[in-house]
Amino acid sequence: MASSSPVTAHRATLDTAVETLRSRAFWTPHPEHPKAYEGDGAAAFGALRDAPFELDLPGTDGWVGGEVSPYGFPLGITYPHTDPDVLLPAMRDALPAWRDAGPEARAVLCVDILARINARSQEFAQAVMHTTGQAYGMAFQAGGPHAQDRGLEAVAYAYEEQTRTPARAGWVKPQGRRPALELAKEFVPVPRGIALVIGCNTFPTWNGFPGLFASLATGNPVLVKPHPRAVLPLALAVRVARETLAEAGFDPNLVTLAVEREDEGVARTLALRDEVRIIDYTGSSAFGEWLEANATHAQVFTEKAGVNTVVVDSTADYRGMLGNLAFSLALYSGQMCTTPQNVLIPRGGIATDGGHKAFDDVVADLAAAVSRLLDDDKRAVGLLGALVNPGVRERLAAADAGEWGEVALASRALTHPDFPDATVRTPVIVRLDGGDPRAVEACLAECFGPVSFAVAVDSTDDALALLRRTVRERGAMTVLGHTTSAAVEAALVEACLDTCAALSLNLTGGVFVNQTAAFSDFHGTGGNPSANSALVDGAFITPRFRTVEIRRPA
Amino acid sequence: MASSSPVTAHRATLDTAVETLRSRAFWTPHPEHPKAYEGDGAAAFGALRDAPFELDLPGTDGWVGGEVSPYGFPLGITYPHTDPDVLLPAMRDALPAWRDAGPEARAVLCVDILARINARSQEFAQAVMHTTGQAYGMAFQAGGPHAQDRGLEAVAYAYEEQTRTPARAGWVKPQGRRPALELAKEFVPVPRGIALVIGCNTFPTWNGFPGLFASLATGNPVLVKPHPRAVLPLALAVRVARETLAEAGFDPNLVTLAVEREDEGVARTLALRDEVRIIDYTGSSAFGEWLEANATHAQVFTEKAGVNTVVVDSTADYRGMLGNLAFSLALYSGQMCTTPQNVLIPRGGIATDGGHKAFDDVVADLAAAVSRLLDDDKRAVGLLGALVNPGVRERLAAADAGEWGEVALASRALTHPDFPDATVRTPVIVRLDGGDPRAVEACLAECFGPVSFAVAVDSTDDALALLRRTVRERGAMTVLGHTTSAAVEAALVEACLDTCAALSLNLTGGVFVNQTAAFSDFHGTGGNPSANSALVDGAFITPRFRTVEIRRPA
Repeated sequence: MASSSPVTAHRATLDTAVETLRSRAFWTPHPEHPKAYEGDGAAAFGALRDAPFELDLPGTDGWVGGEVSPYGFPLGITYPHTDPDVLLPAMRDALPAWRDAGPEARAVLCVDILARINARSQEFAQAVMHTTGQAYGMAFQAGGPHAQDRGLEAVAYAYEEQTRTPARAGWVKPQGRRPALELAKEFVPVPRGIALVIGCNTFPTWNGFPGLFASLATGNPVLVKPHPRAVLPLALAVRVARETLAEAGFDPNLVTLAVEREDEGVARTLALRDEVRIIDYTGSSAFGEWLEANATHAQVFTEKAGVNTVVVDSTADYRGMLGNLAFSLALYSGQMCTTPQNVLIPRGGIATDGGHKAFDDVVADLAAAVSRLLDDDKRAVGLLGALVNPGVRERLAAADAGEWGEVALASRALTHPDFPDATVRTPVIVRLDGGDPRAVEACLAECFGPVSFAVAVDSTDDALALLRRTVRERGAMTVLGHTTSAAVEAALVEACLDTCAALSLNLTGGVFVNQTAAFSDFHGTGGNPSANSALVDGAFITPRFRTVEIRRPA
Repeated sequence: MASSSPVTAHRATLDTAVETLRSRAFWTPHPEHPKAYEGDGAAAFGALRDAPFELDLPGTDGWVGGEVSPYGFPLGITYPHTDPDVLLPAMRDALPAWRDAGPEARAVLCVDILARINARSQEFAQAVMHTTGQAYGMAFQAGGPHAQDRGLEAVAYAYEEQTRTPARAGWVKPQGRRPALELAKEFVPVPRGIALVIGCNTFPTWNGFPGLFASLATGNPVLVKPHPRAVLPLALAVRVARETLAEAGFDPNLVTLAVEREDEGVARTLALRDEVRIIDYTGSSAFGEWLEANATHAQVFTEKAGVNTVVVDSTADYRGMLGNLAFSLALYSGQMCTTPQNVLIPRGGIATDGGHKAFDDVVADLAAAVSRLLDDDKRAVGLLGALVNPGVRERLAAADAGEWGEVALASRALTHPDFPDATVRTPVIVRLDGGDPRAVEACLAECFGPVSFAVAVDSTDDALALLRRTVRERGAMTVLGHTTSAAVEAALVEACLDTCAALSLNLTGGVFVNQTAAFSDFHGTGGNPSANSALVDGAFITPRFRTVEIRRPA
């Protein structure tokens, strides 16, 4: 931010972001095509490998790191390990000057950090690919521009929420014949304290940036605790943030990193520190619920696990429906929190533009659509990516072995042309009978990874009842419905409003239920057990700061 | 709302409220002078006495009530006692239609409720006076127009937060040479569930209305659990709300009342009910902290106890400072959560427009100012009101007996001309030495009621250190500073920003530290131990609803 022109550009970006959040139209300042970006990502990634990742963090007391690419090689990168008793006070010391900088300066600086991250999208793509197992195309888009969009969205919301109250106001209260009462008032947004971001394995930047930038833009120093298997993308972001802060004359310790030794359980320790007042978490329900129940001194924002449902009632585009759904199941091997798990289909079959289709037909046609989508190995690996961890491999193997029911589509092992050691598998579809209590039990449990259940239900009403039960008991990040009936559509809407689940209807083209677009779509609702917050709404921002009022006689 | 003209008027009121929240200028639609209102409050109150208060609540299983006016007579009113297993499901049943009405219809209806309450301000004044012990003038203003202002402020904020996202949006994403992706999106604010409002003894409407209207305007059915000693004002509000809802065709069970039998502890039971998803609470720190730690399934908004400090460094208007502070200590016998408790004065004295004043002079002059303010019994009872409960009487007696230190101003018992059985007492001022650890311990504990401590400190720096410690450890709703030094003023501001406390400076006229005005001032900050929320800011509103998005191909 040496010259004024980037500030002006960042200010304009911020204003457009704020406007778009009101219109919810399509917009992004971050092109999603890799060709729009310069830089040799592979070379930059290669230069990071087998070396310590310097960050110059206070309290550094060793070096740790054991990331292994899901594509089959160790990254060989070590990161500073820090002593919280040194690191946290250094972060606290950085707070007052950042608070005093005010909402606009903070927002513009956050936009600057994001612009610098954006310029290095090719490098981030490699880092995301080799920590999450996402295919390159997805790692680039979701880990790069789309994650930057979500970060910018949080900055825009933070700026707007902090400035809706003016910095100064005059107040004159008439007193009849006596002189009016007059006050000069000042309103200062003040941060909560230190913010902790607990990253996840599968989408370190996409799920990490909103909390990071929401907290930083509202004045809070941010400590990023990445998942031990996906440190690099967030370490890169922390480094860029520290450089940007330092260049602008702020303390770089406003953004720091906490990498842990194996089994150190540092998230739990840090979450209970009194200095930590905000926690953003993406990961398992067990730890998310522990945070919600135990870190009551902090504002806790969680995205946990859910069970996503598709209700298939009828369709005017059978081929489109199958193709769209097949893509949703295949994308990143079903390792998205938004991937459908349970496909509920009336056992009597459904009406389609191609005539009546029996339950067995629908399941077979869906299986065929998935097979067709993935029959070319090169195209398949570009969609599937690699399995992220042993837990996913184990669930897939169990499904394939008939653990939960009859296999309608078996998984196929693929060899990645560039990474022969990667574990690449096509998804499994298992048939379940919704009338069997054991089957219902199976489909009510989250089965994260490339396993989905085609569930025979008595009727669409029965499907809606199971949908309601699933969202109420297990939560859901997404619900998808296919119907040509206005009455069924209304019933689906009602079910989703009652259970607070996001609904997509009749997706048959190039928009998939798994995907949400920043500035327009909310990611989740925050109102069912899968998450206590949505990306990004007012409730994701307002608890991160308070307003201190100073009144003086005018 | 039979004709369209009240709706138009309410809509205009809402718009002006939303605008004023942005400007923070003075505004109110509720005149604060009793003469602006018709109706015979005493007659209306008399008609309510010694009779059951009918509400036609589902699950009514008996009648309870034992309110005794602090002015010395039992109210003789009984209220329906209800079975939560009947009442809560009835409230749940009322939710969908209220949700479907949308933010504007809800806001306009809430404004209508407030307008009807406003028209009955004389009746509410009597109800507040004879449950809280406030003098008539204060009961009228704080319990009437000012409480209505706070309610309207909450409605305006709720309306704005729910409508910042449009109800519908089109989204068109270009795809290069391929057809654009197009979606029609719908965004529906959905309520959290049942909201519980736990009222307090001293300001049942002023502290109760913000939560009640914030929750109702965001679509949540509201169960009001008043303090057993201050049921009537909230029962009246509930009755008006139910009538207004029913007339507009909504289920009156959107607003209900839970009055408890003695020692029933119904707040604890209700707070842990799964249906209850929002809790607003004003009262003791012990129960507030219990709610924050245990009702983790709900959004909990608390205002608890704090210890308010005055830092006296220097003044350019010694008389004005003393007069203003004397009024603050006397108003409602110091029974406000915003009343100053600890007046920190350098032991070497202070610089004033009347020359140097020694510590002893300042204490003596403050005591004299309080005595002068209250020397006329008729004027005094109009300021002091009556002591609200035995706990206040006991603390006052202990202070008068020298329990915490030397008495600088003893309390005087007054006889109320109209209510000879009322306990009316002038405030006590106790001298403490800030160098004595026992004295510091005394002034760090909240001593609710007409007891304040004049604390000798080594210096203004010492005062600032004690201020910081007090706010950090005990919280504060208000801080008042008197100084003519720019450096001290800056240090006071810094201390309040660091500890997240609201600061008033150099009040010497008709504005008092105890008072905050809706639409302009925040009541508290929500960022120190005295409260986890402020009245009213975005954070008070946004967690009360979620947004469900519905996406369809365009």
